[in-house]
Amino acid sequence: MKKICIRPSIPSLSTDLYIGEDLLTSEQLLRFFNQCKGKKVIVADCAIKNLYAMKLSQQICAELITIQSGEHVKTQKTVEHLMDALFQMGAGKDTTLIALGGGVTTDLVGFVASIYMRGISLVLVPTTLIGLVDAAIGGKTAVNTPFGKNLIGTIYPPKAIWADLNILQTLPEKEQLNGLAEILKIGLIYDSSIWELAKHNGHMHTLILKAIQGKIAIIEQDPMEQALRRILNFGHTMGHALETVAHYEMPHGEAVALGCLVEGYLSMRLGYLSEKNFEKIQAIYHRFPLQLPKAYTRTKLLEAMAHDKKRAFGEIRFVLIDEIGHALPFEGAYCRAVIPHELESTLNWMENR
Amino acid sequence: MKKICIRPSIPSLSTDLYIGEDLLTSEQLLRFFNQCKGKKVIVADCAIKNLYAMKLSQQICAELITIQSGEHVKTQKTVEHLMDALFQMGAGKDTTLIALGGGVTTDLVGFVASIYMRGISLVLVPTTLIGLVDAAIGGKTAVNTPFGKNLIGTIYPPKAIWADLNILQTLPEKEQLNGLAEILKIGLIYDSSIWELAKHNGHMHTLILKAIQGKIAIIEQDPMEQALRRILNFGHTMGHALETVAHYEMPHGEAVALGCLVEGYLSMRLGYLSEKNFEKIQAIYHRFPLQLPKAYTRTKLLEAMAHDKKRAFGEIRFVLIDEIGHALPFEGAYCRAVIPHELESTLNWMENR
Repeated sequence: MKKICIRPSIPSLSTDLYIGEDLLTSEQLLRFFNQCKGKKVIVADCAIKNLYAMKLSQQICAELITIQSGEHVKTQKTVEHLMDALFQMGAGKDTTLIALGGGVTTDLVGFVASIYMRGISLVLVPTTLIGLVDAAIGGKTAVNTPFGKNLIGTIYPPKAIWADLNILQTLPEKEQLNGLAEILKIGLIYDSSIWELAKHNGHMHTLILKAIQGKIAIIEQDPMEQALRRILNFGHTMGHALETVAHYEMPHGEAVALGCLVEGYLSMRLGYLSEKNFEKIQAIYHRFPLQLPKAYTRTKLLEAMAHDKKRAFGEIRFVLIDEIGHALPFEGAYCRAVIPHELESTLNWMENR
Repeated sequence: MKKICIRPSIPSLSTDLYIGEDLLTSEQLLRFFNQCKGKKVIVADCAIKNLYAMKLSQQICAELITIQSGEHVKTQKTVEHLMDALFQMGAGKDTTLIALGGGVTTDLVGFVASIYMRGISLVLVPTTLIGLVDAAIGGKTAVNTPFGKNLIGTIYPPKAIWADLNILQTLPEKEQLNGLAEILKIGLIYDSSIWELAKHNGHMHTLILKAIQGKIAIIEQDPMEQALRRILNFGHTMGHALETVAHYEMPHGEAVALGCLVEGYLSMRLGYLSEKNFEKIQAIYHRFPLQLPKAYTRTKLLEAMAHDKKRAFGEIRFVLIDEIGHALPFEGAYCRAVIPHELESTLNWMENR
């Protein structure tokens, strides 16, 4: 087992990340939870209930709440339902809330932990690769709204994350690809060695660790996303808008993969990225089933983008790259406004791929 | 005008408090809001719409949303209604949200600002004395639930607070008393000079400033309420439970006044506070119309207390005092468990007053 301490510039936002094999059945995990005072409540995605949730809840003497799986449960309504359940079981401010599941579950449960009694202790046990790399690390919590994805939320890092590599490695191929999409994104914006490794089908463990370390380096410098951390949104301006158009029936990883490819193209069209580098990028994304959502129209996409959180002074802003492994700083804003006219050729290209 | 900088140990929780006469029509205020980039949105309690909200919104070019007044609007439903309004007017992450009203409005709007797009800029303009002393300073935001008061919320200090003493001084007598209840509480737990001044009907300005300075000294040491800040809950374990029993139809100030008196009595019964000091406390509270809510029963009160946020390991905990001006530290917990049996004589006394 490896323990990675995430220590941002704001000390109260610290997290301990435990990563290794067979962690969920380890002595260390039991010892960790036995040290938590007060009530323990696991919220688990029902898709994994039989596999791990029942066993874990018995081992650590925790109450168990199950929720449906899928992006459509990531709403204010589920948040209220969960909080009512916590009130009804008499959960106080000394409760530890444990999220067991994918990114939807950890985002949702993290949000509940951040507002229940003005914040209770939170531990994440991600069970998908994208849930570990994307959602669990960095403390962002969120729910979706009809206006767009992740538009309500907080920055509330968990006390600890337990990442069991066995669970992550028994994921179906499709789930592995979803995780790879976020790993590749970190490669594109921050660490070209990730990209090299992925290109040569390097070992998945190494890829995961490199991606995690890259992400931690970014969020430690800017935990509240006031500048540098924005680069983690590469591929997400387009990706989130596509998910909104698809009514969240498109997996986040697929949306991010398509988003990265399209925002890579945009980086080239705007003259920042060489054609040669864009071709390298394009070559890797052949692994992904990149389809526009059935409900796609350009009007709907632009409407969804209008609610992007990076928007400022009425303009849509994109993170852009000039090399594989380097996002442009734009004088500390780490994103730049792209006017509709500049976007047109990129949208044409995306629609006709 | 006086500018008081609130600088807790966590720098990102800083607030600038501007306090003085005629601030709402001052050049300084206009200059301050002209420096805010992005959209400005005022959320005002409809009770004060005609007085200040329209004028302010025109002066600083802000959009205006009005909400009903009263504790019953401080719910998740109003939060969703406000967020929908913000999405519909295209408010982005660069929006400044301005709360104009009493404590209900600032708590509610503060909560919205803390979760809308994971946090947008917040400015408070309290229009009641209790709203200034109690709700505006310290960054607590909240909504009520059927299970109890302020059970959902965040700690999210505003960027700035503008406190216009003219508005605060034209409040009706009843509103002044509500504010006085919180001022006296700070006197009881932290600063006996407040108490001396109040006893001799000292100048209201001086009382307000002393209470503000006392509160700031406490929250600067412990912004996240992990220890010392708990003393600000004196009178509130009982007070909040009374409000819950009254279905929030009891003014917060009245509930806190009665709560402080009763928790003072409890401090005496448990042997911490002398009878002589308790009599002094009792003498001042004759100014307040201290009535139990019509719906009061002991069972309902105990049920409401069971959801108190200070509760730990299944026990109800109270902040207690041993002197006028000093709360007991209890080895850094700043509150102690009181078992039902110990509470009984205090409840008997309260019911038979």
